[in-house]
Amino acid sequence: MTRTMFDLCGADQRLRFSPFCWRVRLALAHKGLEAETRAWHFTDKQAIAFSGQQKVPVLVDEDDEVIVDSFDIMAWLDDKYPVVSLLGEGEAQRRARFIKHWAEGALAPAIMKIAILDVFAAIDPKDRDYFRESREQRLGSRLEDFQDAQEGARLLDAALKPLRAQLEDAPFIDGERPGGADYLAFGMFMLPRVVRPQPLLEEGDAAHGWHERMLDLFDGMARNAPRVSG
Amino acid sequence: MTRTMFDLCGADQRLRFSPFCWRVRLALAHKGLEAETRAWHFTDKQAIAFSGQQKVPVLVDEDDEVIVDSFDIMAWLDDKYPVVSLLGEGEAQRRARFIKHWAEGALAPAIMKIAILDVFAAIDPKDRDYFRESREQRLGSRLEDFQDAQEGARLLDAALKPLRAQLEDAPFIDGERPGGADYLAFGMFMLPRVVRPQPLLEEGDAAHGWHERMLDLFDGMARNAPRVSG
Repeated sequence: MTRTMFDLCGADQRLRFSPFCWRVRLALAHKGLEAETRAWHFTDKQAIAFSGQQKVPVLVDEDDEVIVDSFDIMAWLDDKYPVVSLLGEGEAQRRARFIKHWAEGALAPAIMKIAILDVFAAIDPKDRDYFRESREQRLGSRLEDFQDAQEGARLLDAALKPLRAQLEDAPFIDGERPGGADYLAFGMFMLPRVVRPQPLLEEGDAAHGWHERMLDLFDGMARNAPRVSG
Repeated sequence: MTRTMFDLCGADQRLRFSPFCWRVRLALAHKGLEAETRAWHFTDKQAIAFSGQQKVPVLVDEDDEVIVDSFDIMAWLDDKYPVVSLLGEGEAQRRARFIKHWAEGALAPAIMKIAILDVFAAIDPKDRDYFRESREQRLGSRLEDFQDAQEGARLLDAALKPLRAQLEDAPFIDGERPGGADYLAFGMFMLPRVVRPQPLLEEGDAAHGWHERMLDLFDGMARNAPRVSG
């Protein structure tokens, strides 16, 4: 078995907190495909230079095909391993893409308000200058000024409205069983879960129930992922 | 032709501003189906009592089948008139439902912050007590205190992020051609378009370009809808 995924890690290499890598790990499990994950730090740009870009996830499939970008990897897996669809085709795939954009445009900003300093604390010291510079340029403020757990909780509560409404009819975004849309959204929640000891969601919240179900999938693959201790 | 849709109207019966009714009007046009719309006021509960509930849209199809709720009507149309799908089935339909919840949970609150007093001004005087009481109970504040165009614009800008990102790849949410997800989202924009003279979106915004394309569909069905004058 030579399928390999380059997977962002913390100073403790067991800490895997990239939302985008988690999408792919769950997508692979959904298809029953195994992959060796290779711990990768933000500044290990040389290690993935072969992919022609600088971000993970990078998937190197069995026959040395190289695929990047979490959504593109999921679409590629659907093409190469069509049994048990992830994103589907046509409108189904377009609508999954919308849910990806909701996860990145609504959930992620709220979660980063809550957890960006926890990420900073969890990453390898050698990555910290890179992380601070790249994020502070993107955010237009210092990490310490951006972090605001109370404002983040308020944003998260608003961002979760479509998810909570969706879960009134079925246990997963995609219906009775989890699908590509669930992985696209859930990956985002693995960042705060891994880098912070505090729970993000409260019991009784429909989003919490879904989060618990997602943690349980594939023999607790996500639930058993190492976390920082409290 | 005996297909009839009960359609919310203003004091001027030509003003049709219900997001939910617009979804159905566009969905019918998408399938090439004609329908007579019947002007209906908020307080005309008796006129739709036969539907077993109190809200529009209510569709009475050719053979006297009665269907309510915009999403359920769209799904029903897919079953009864399967040529040219709106929502599709399985995961495609589930993901369309998520986009419905985004439209109602993220777009609608922003738009109502901007336009609720314009709705109040546009509706029939006989509907105003009902509208004020039902909305003020739901919102927990007076209409005049809830309206806040500046805060609404800020919320709208944040809510539009997934839509703008989605439009980077294709002209419509559903891809190269508009589909059910586009109608679910676009209906929401017809409320401010009809009840306010000011444009909601600015030129140069990807959401504005999409909004223009949606207005043009079906020989300008939405563009030509009567509006309040400036």
